[in-house]
Amino acid sequence: MTAAKAPMIGDLPAGQRNAISDVQGVTIGHATIAEGAVQTGVTIVMPHAGNLFLEKLPAAACVLNGFGKTAGLMQLIELGTIESPIALTNTFAVGTVATALVRRALAATPEIGRTMSTVNPVVAECNDGYLNDLSAFAVAEIHCETACATASAEFARGAVGAGRGMSCFGVKGGIGTASRVATLDGMPYTLGALVLANFGRAPQFTLAGRRLGPALAARTAGAPAPEERGSIIVVLATDAPVDSRQLRRIAMRAGAGIARTGSNFGHGSGDVVIAFSTAERIAERAVAALRVRHVLAEPRLERLFDAAADATEQAILDALWSAVTVEGRDGHVRRALLDVAPDWASLAR
Amino acid sequence: MTAAKAPMIGDLPAGQRNAISDVQGVTIGHATIAEGAVQTGVTIVMPHAGNLFLEKLPAAACVLNGFGKTAGLMQLIELGTIESPIALTNTFAVGTVATALVRRALAATPEIGRTMSTVNPVVAECNDGYLNDLSAFAVAEIHCETACATASAEFARGAVGAGRGMSCFGVKGGIGTASRVATLDGMPYTLGALVLANFGRAPQFTLAGRRLGPALAARTAGAPAPEERGSIIVVLATDAPVDSRQLRRIAMRAGAGIARTGSNFGHGSGDVVIAFSTAERIAERAVAALRVRHVLAEPRLERLFDAAADATEQAILDALWSAVTVEGRDGHVRRALLDVAPDWASLAR
Amino acid sequence: MTAAKAPMIGDLPAGQRNAISDVQGVTIGHATIAEGAVQTGVTIVMPHAGNLFLEKLPAAACVLNGFGKTAGLMQLIELGTIESPIALTNTFAVGTVATALVRRALAATPEIGRTMSTVNPVVAECNDGYLNDLSAFAVAEIHCETACATASAEFARGAVGAGRGMSCFGVKGGIGTASRVATLDGMPYTLGALVLANFGRAPQFTLAGRRLGPALAARTAGAPAPEERGSIIVVLATDAPVDSRQLRRIAMRAGAGIARTGSNFGHGSGDVVIAFSTAERIAERAVAALRVRHVLAEPRLERLFDAAADATEQAILDALWSAVTVEGRDGHVRRALLDVAPDWASLAR
Amino acid sequence: MTAAKAPMIGDLPAGQRNAISDVQGVTIGHATIAEGAVQTGVTIVMPHAGNLFLEKLPAAACVLNGFGKTAGLMQLIELGTIESPIALTNTFAVGTVATALVRRALAATPEIGRTMSTVNPVVAECNDGYLNDLSAFAVAEIHCETACATASAEFARGAVGAGRGMSCFGVKGGIGTASRVATLDGMPYTLGALVLANFGRAPQFTLAGRRLGPALAARTAGAPAPEERGSIIVVLATDAPVDSRQLRRIAMRAGAGIARTGSNFGHGSGDVVIAFSTAERIAERAVAALRVRHVLAEPRLERLFDAAADATEQAILDALWSAVTVEGRDGHVRRALLDVAPDWASLAR
Repeated sequence: MTAAKAPMIGDLPAGQRNAISDVQGVTIGHATIAEGAVQTGVTIVMPHAGNLFLEKLPAAACVLNGFGKTAGLMQLIELGTIESPIALTNTFAVGTVATALVRRALAATPEIGRTMSTVNPVVAECNDGYLNDLSAFAVAEIHCETACATASAEFARGAVGAGRGMSCFGVKGGIGTASRVATLDGMPYTLGALVLANFGRAPQFTLAGRRLGPALAARTAGAPAPEERGSIIVVLATDAPVDSRQLRRIAMRAGAGIARTGSNFGHGSGDVVIAFSTAERIAERAVAALRVRHVLAEPRLERLFDAAADATEQAILDALWSAVTVEGRDGHVRRALLDVAPDWASLAR
Repeated sequence: MTAAKAPMIGDLPAGQRNAISDVQGVTIGHATIAEGAVQTGVTIVMPHAGNLFLEKLPAAACVLNGFGKTAGLMQLIELGTIESPIALTNTFAVGTVATALVRRALAATPEIGRTMSTVNPVVAECNDGYLNDLSAFAVAEIHCETACATASAEFARGAVGAGRGMSCFGVKGGIGTASRVATLDGMPYTLGALVLANFGRAPQFTLAGRRLGPALAARTAGAPAPEERGSIIVVLATDAPVDSRQLRRIAMRAGAGIARTGSNFGHGSGDVVIAFSTAERIAERAVAALRVRHVLAEPRLERLFDAAADATEQAILDALWSAVTVEGRDGHVRRALLDVAPDWASLAR
Repeated sequence: MTAAKAPMIGDLPAGQRNAISDVQGVTIGHATIAEGAVQTGVTIVMPHAGNLFLEKLPAAACVLNGFGKTAGLMQLIELGTIESPIALTNTFAVGTVATALVRRALAATPEIGRTMSTVNPVVAECNDGYLNDLSAFAVAEIHCETACATASAEFARGAVGAGRGMSCFGVKGGIGTASRVATLDGMPYTLGALVLANFGRAPQFTLAGRRLGPALAARTAGAPAPEERGSIIVVLATDAPVDSRQLRRIAMRAGAGIARTGSNFGHGSGDVVIAFSTAERIAERAVAALRVRHVLAEPRLERLFDAAADATEQAILDALWSAVTVEGRDGHVRRALLDVAPDWASLAR
Repeated sequence: MTAAKAPMIGDLPAGQRNAISDVQGVTIGHATIAEGAVQTGVTIVMPHAGNLFLEKLPAAACVLNGFGKTAGLMQLIELGTIESPIALTNTFAVGTVATALVRRALAATPEIGRTMSTVNPVVAECNDGYLNDLSAFAVAEIHCETACATASAEFARGAVGAGRGMSCFGVKGGIGTASRVATLDGMPYTLGALVLANFGRAPQFTLAGRRLGPALAARTAGAPAPEERGSIIVVLATDAPVDSRQLRRIAMRAGAGIARTGSNFGHGSGDVVIAFSTAERIAERAVAALRVRHVLAEPRLERLFDAAADATEQAILDALWSAVTVEGRDGHVRRALLDVAPDWASLAR
């Protein structure tokens, strides 16, 4: 983490780390591959430390622009649950990482696919092909396992894990995170966001309301700005007791945060939001026919909507602020924002 | 109701009345207009006897074919709740009936639209224009009020209420109903269906697996069979504790029941399913931030899926079996199935 | 129209009028009711001057938040066409205006509902209950007819038509409009937006990137700021040849424009976008089995996405800039933004 | 292929082969793995013989029940195109097969992921874990390549390819196919279906309207009938000129065909339909901004709806009729329907 901090967004307070891991039990792991023309990796969001297949969480997804290859959303939406870690990686590695997640679930629960249902791995991706030689297929199952094994509440941001080769607004993108705390009827609820930011054209860049795009475009004038083929993946976690339908409503608000950084959800960008709640665990093998659930009264969602939008915007800025300059395939270079514009380090709202 | 009974569908037992009102608290009312060229009306499904705006129910909808003008689904889907009676009527009367439902809610709760939110009326429709002179705009607000006021657990079927002018498989359609009881872990849950059946071409007609379409087509050879401009509206009620997402899954299975009567969800047919649960009431003005909810474990839905498909198929047959021959505008006549084929009255599975 | 102009958004040029009517053939009409406690009306977007039922247009819709009562979207989405004018009005008037649109279509084409299909009226709404006495049910069918009859390429903005009683960011909202021209392969295509702006809380207000919300909240400190029960309806028109699927993608980008004004699509706000293209007309009674269609190559949509976001943001600002202070029921007053903050009139980007 | 033929469904004529390959250019390939406890494979539907990435086809999908792991639908739906072969396989092999399809596309077009977009592989699956030892992860990339390489208009059905280990209504399932020809305005259009049938409980089985489920259940009384964890994948191909929205409507009707075989889209069954049209090719790199497209007038879809329902029902029966008895892991056996009930071989409608 760099010393400079991205400007604070919105009026809700951040959690202690200003990270998705402020939601109790959520951990993040990375496997980074940075060897010449290969600049890529895997990032894992671990929703809880237990056996996710046996103890699922309520979940939902929102597709803002579907030009992407995320796996696992169909079942997640139908059943409203998540039963695997959420993996982020490059576009060509989705299959390999999905297989790794299946194998990991099997190791923990050998009954899967025999006396129990099969498991639904969730793998989201962005295209890091500008810096990374996708055709090397460098991500192997071991990278997914490493990322899972090293998941922690303290984790690196920027050009790490799946974020290693990503670009954003013409500069270096990658992993960013933030959190917000909304207090409802005296009870504090935390919502955290983690983004894999690989979207946006330089002239659109907006920093906490400042339309710095033209300035950024001028400073990166030499950099190639092909038509948008990026993507952004947003993972939202909350400890608020909300069901799948409510989580989808919350996920939708991440779009407001993305829009405020300047993007119009470009044609070629797969913009996907996945949200889950840690407040309830749903047993794979329910003994009782009924389960008891606590859910927030619907109007109470308003502040969680604000939290989702603000944490997403903040997490994108965090990805830019945490980035380092990376050189990848064919001499391609993406400079870190604070290398391009060191004077912006101190910009506050 | 005629003495003859439609064949029983499936292996689940029916409730006491084999009607949607077997779900405790659900009542049905009709207002029928049958005067020469005007053959139409309103049917009301009243989900409970209390103030629906103040005590909403979990609800969902499933659009099998969207060539229709049903009002109120957008909010029902977003919030997962129903807060008004469900009205069925002819296509041109949707606006008038929606206004009547708003006015009725205001009479009960004057704060609506002033210090409280506005109310979302749900009005579904089919096109009865073959028998009914739609251009007479004969349905007035008073018909909606009458249907609400007369709602009862005992109710007429066939060519009554919104069903007065409807056609189905080239013969007389209209209102039909059925119910099924699924016992889960020793606890009986009831699911009821009410249909407004105005769909299907005679050659497709299938009776409890018997492909009687060609026979029916032969017997109704003189009857005009224009391209399908019909529709079917299915309302499902259950006392099982299921949330909005689960109700949408249940609603989808009504499509299996419709398909088994021979329809392929024709291009011009608005095929819509609305489902609600009476097991939980959701207060408009929640005092507490959290509400406690009991929901069925997901795999327990299987028998409710069967109940939804079977009750829907049965309710369609009930509409045909309950029909009487009706003459409407311009000398148009739709004969009752049992007038066309009295020998089918005794068909059992 | 006031002399002051809202700041220009984005880098695409506006059309000649900077209005939705820059799309050739699109006209707008209003009926305004402003009598003491009744401050409401109807606004009509007329997609072309011909018989819309006989010559439909490709259309799509995008629901950003479904807490609203818009009628007609189900069929519009299923068939990908619009066949009636788009009416905007208050929440309780949806039924009446829908009936008026049906009657108007019947007057032009008496075969509707007899030898032809029925017609699908599209009516969107916002809740103007703070200024307007909704329970007066003041909107009658004649207001819809008047709005249709007076539709013109030159039209008033601000507190007129359906916008009469609307509020936005704690000040006076209403009707706003804007347009953008995107040149693709040398060919200029126009996209126009018209909004009915009735959403947003004062502290969120963002003006062309400037987060003026706290300042606005301070200046309107006396004004009541109930929880959000607003809504925004966005109508997008374009002369670009795009099909229904592409129009839905374009409609989604209106959400970016809304977000940039500060909203997070609040819980109680029905945020709905309806889009249509004037480039192709689809005959109700197709003689030929095939129709020939020109459509934009998919990557060319990018600039139309920008146009949709920018025109929507601009149209919202236009609604604020065009507003006048209105007093309505129970002495409630909404001040125009430029009455609250006359010094902002000259703000430029 | 067995000599016995499944009963003919519906009144539309079949194409020459009564197979999906009656749609000109569509070919099918299998790789079958049948070694003791491993009974699985890959089946490929090749939409045309050219470079699918460079020449995409209009496509759509319909999810009847989303309890499944199909990859690639999000982008297919967003862009309305298919750009890879459609692969069918077992649940745990989705990742490996997706990777194989990416590698295959790269071999044909090395610019993918470098100067062009990435490619979207479409891989659907069913759970063959009763007969097949899923945990062996026996499917390798080579099997996908083999299936692609051997694709042909003449192809095997039954317990081959992805169908090797599948079960259906308590007997042996697998690959089935059928086609129908609908003549519109004198022009014959072909619609073909291919199914991977792995769904249904014995007591539900319905054969061309005959409810043979109880009889089948009695004859398979010894066979284990665990709760449904199956799935059915339906691929529909047509040479009719229809766009993505229309293809989704057609795909929905496959559900009517599935329902008529007795299924209610069981909770644990991933029921997914993927449809494409060969009538138009969409260039990856469009030179012109506009493309010309011919599409069927909407009411002409009616007969294609019938074709989709009937071909799907027929293809499921074909899978049962084509099956052979298979023994797999742990001595598990699924008997072929015609081994269980040889007397049904001659059943005609």
